[in-house]
Amino acid sequence: MQAEIVTIGDEILIGQIVDTNSAWLGKTLNAEGIDIHRIHSIRDIPSEIHRALQAVDEQTQLVILTGGLGPTRDDKTKQALADFFGVSMELHPDVEQHIEALFAKFNRQVNRLNRSQAMLPANCIPLFNEKGTAPGMLFEWGERLLISLPGVPYEMKHLLLEKAFPEIRARQTLNMEICHRTLLTQGVPESILAEQLSEYEDHLPDALKLAYLPSPGRVRLRLTGRGPKGTNITSSVERYFDDLRQSLKSISYGEGDAEMEEIVGGLLRDKRRTVGVAESCTGGYISHLITRVPGSSDYFQGSVLSYSNDLKIKILNVNPEDILSFGAVSEPVVRQMAIEAANLLKTDYALATSGIAGPSGGSSEKPVGLVWIGLHSPKGTKAFQFQFNGDRERIIRKSSLMALDILRRALVDDAGKA
Amino acid sequence: MQAEIVTIGDEILIGQIVDTNSAWLGKTLNAEGIDIHRIHSIRDIPSEIHRALQAVDEQTQLVILTGGLGPTRDDKTKQALADFFGVSMELHPDVEQHIEALFAKFNRQVNRLNRSQAMLPANCIPLFNEKGTAPGMLFEWGERLLISLPGVPYEMKHLLLEKAFPEIRARQTLNMEICHRTLLTQGVPESILAEQLSEYEDHLPDALKLAYLPSPGRVRLRLTGRGPKGTNITSSVERYFDDLRQSLKSISYGEGDAEMEEIVGGLLRDKRRTVGVAESCTGGYISHLITRVPGSSDYFQGSVLSYSNDLKIKILNVNPEDILSFGAVSEPVVRQMAIEAANLLKTDYALATSGIAGPSGGSSEKPVGLVWIGLHSPKGTKAFQFQFNGDRERIIRKSSLMALDILRRALVDDAGKA
Repeated sequence: MQAEIVTIGDEILIGQIVDTNSAWLGKTLNAEGIDIHRIHSIRDIPSEIHRALQAVDEQTQLVILTGGLGPTRDDKTKQALADFFGVSMELHPDVEQHIEALFAKFNRQVNRLNRSQAMLPANCIPLFNEKGTAPGMLFEWGERLLISLPGVPYEMKHLLLEKAFPEIRARQTLNMEICHRTLLTQGVPESILAEQLSEYEDHLPDALKLAYLPSPGRVRLRLTGRGPKGTNITSSVERYFDDLRQSLKSISYGEGDAEMEEIVGGLLRDKRRTVGVAESCTGGYISHLITRVPGSSDYFQGSVLSYSNDLKIKILNVNPEDILSFGAVSEPVVRQMAIEAANLLKTDYALATSGIAGPSGGSSEKPVGLVWIGLHSPKGTKAFQFQFNGDRERIIRKSSLMALDILRRALVDDAGKA
Repeated sequence: MQAEIVTIGDEILIGQIVDTNSAWLGKTLNAEGIDIHRIHSIRDIPSEIHRALQAVDEQTQLVILTGGLGPTRDDKTKQALADFFGVSMELHPDVEQHIEALFAKFNRQVNRLNRSQAMLPANCIPLFNEKGTAPGMLFEWGERLLISLPGVPYEMKHLLLEKAFPEIRARQTLNMEICHRTLLTQGVPESILAEQLSEYEDHLPDALKLAYLPSPGRVRLRLTGRGPKGTNITSSVERYFDDLRQSLKSISYGEGDAEMEEIVGGLLRDKRRTVGVAESCTGGYISHLITRVPGSSDYFQGSVLSYSNDLKIKILNVNPEDILSFGAVSEPVVRQMAIEAANLLKTDYALATSGIAGPSGGSSEKPVGLVWIGLHSPKGTKAFQFQFNGDRERIIRKSSLMALDILRRALVDDAGKA
């Protein structure tokens, strides 16, 4: 099934918000075997909505519109759809009742604007929204399905998964097989990876495609196969993905959409180990990554963020003379931070960072991007030096990912707690 | 000047990456008086690239393509553009030299793939890339400018700002005036805000438009005016924006694109105050927000992340009996955390959080989303209770923004250090 997305709202075009909805829709529909062919981001002007719908590809069977369904008057989608289909707007009493019930639950008064959300194009099938007041709408558009969802991500996701998917599944006749597998690699730039994989790519069958997705500190390699059903695309992808995994064993940290912090969290849980962090230049970002993962309190005790030298000395017991002799960004300091973090937080492992995230604070001897990472583990203490490039945000992100990867490697070699 | 963006790459359509480039382009072009009319996200297939170019609006004078310029073979843009313009690919020796010089600087070997990046459509004007090996390209397309940039955000931004803008500015004949002003509000839902502003909206002139941009914990209100040059759109926007600012005084925390942490950082610097944090449920996110801001070490000393009760007792001196009697998520505990954080970190202000971020850990008495926030200030210690809704990520984000806003309000009333 081929789909297109139409994203409505000036806020995307003027860059006030980033279009995360489309990424989520792409991922979610793809997993259902639905191929997003194109995304149109347009202004919330009725004529532009009409034009985008007219531009939809002949082969497209599913169109998803997001945005422009709020209670406020900058939201034009409902009226534009009524005009497009040549129908009037009508009060849908079941939607009105639903909104009233929702408000009663939260002890809130229904106001005039909330109530107006029950006015919908006469030909739509309403999709009841349990997370907000704007209903979704489903239209039969010739052979196509057209689904209009609110732009608030939370509500959009709920309506697609719970209300629209059953309708889509009931109608779709899948004839294509799509298979993606993704290998996650860390620390090697895209062009070096590509040179290394040149021969591998030469031997890929036509139906398979390798894509390089670089982001700060990592490259994700996505192998995709597409073909008519029954052509065994999936097993072909699996076979070639195995080869890829083997040849990049030393630099890959995982597969699929897993984040580094989820992989590390899984290892800590499996091996019944705990971790603490002493952060300086990463400013809490390593701790934030670890605690983003639900259930992280099972293996994470806490951290000390010793941004100032005083705190490094006072809380983390760093020798003041070492700070004087070697500077805060140095091997002896980051080692002491890691050891004392494990000690203070009573954890099996501890990570420590000290570096210069910039934009100021660098020198010719210790330039912006110089970062020391320390790891204390049951096997002892190690420290590693890196020179990262990029702006403050990238240096913080690269340092944090690298620290978590150092922990991951140590955990892989750890037999676990008896 | 009207522009369109064409974003090339399957990774956006299958949702493997979020299209942050378009948001940045929208914001940056808009500030130059260039209006983004539409964004097309398409697959990296030459026929789709051609089709997107054919669909460009007649009024559009500037087209920006991003993506598909990497050294690897999944990158098809260069050849597709050569075919579109009916020209051959040619070696551009100046680009080759530029790539060699770039590699010499980083002490790296130029490989075959890097060298192939100097092969470009014969009719293009290369834009030399100082941040990577893929050059940008500029084409004269009848009355239009077509600019092709790599998809890596870092390189794309550099090429647009440093290399493409001078060319665009030299050619554009601006005839439209666009003006945006944005008011940042916190803690009041969109529909209540809209009801409150109903009369205000009734009196807005036709050329002005108010948009509501909700995200976890806040609503940004954008007032936009558009009109032919010389119609004084800007002063009209300013006048109506003043009214808006006055009527929402009690709930607004700033204006424009500033983030809460930048506003708070500015206040701390102006008033020569320092801040420390004791985080539990927010897991380092408050500290990360504070330290994202360059120069934050001037006012931020550090934090303690006491995720476990043990650490709350050991490092933050919380009375174990209070944890037993009231629980870790309680007023007495968060007050003690704030006081001791200020004490330990030697800061004027300290924030503390303790709550249940979920998805597990909630009870009927203390449900998921219950968060206590403590503030210690030169005027004393206060604690506030909140019930946030949403998933783990939203609860962490809402709690952190709320904590920073509590600090902001206290700082606004602070006369500063003598």
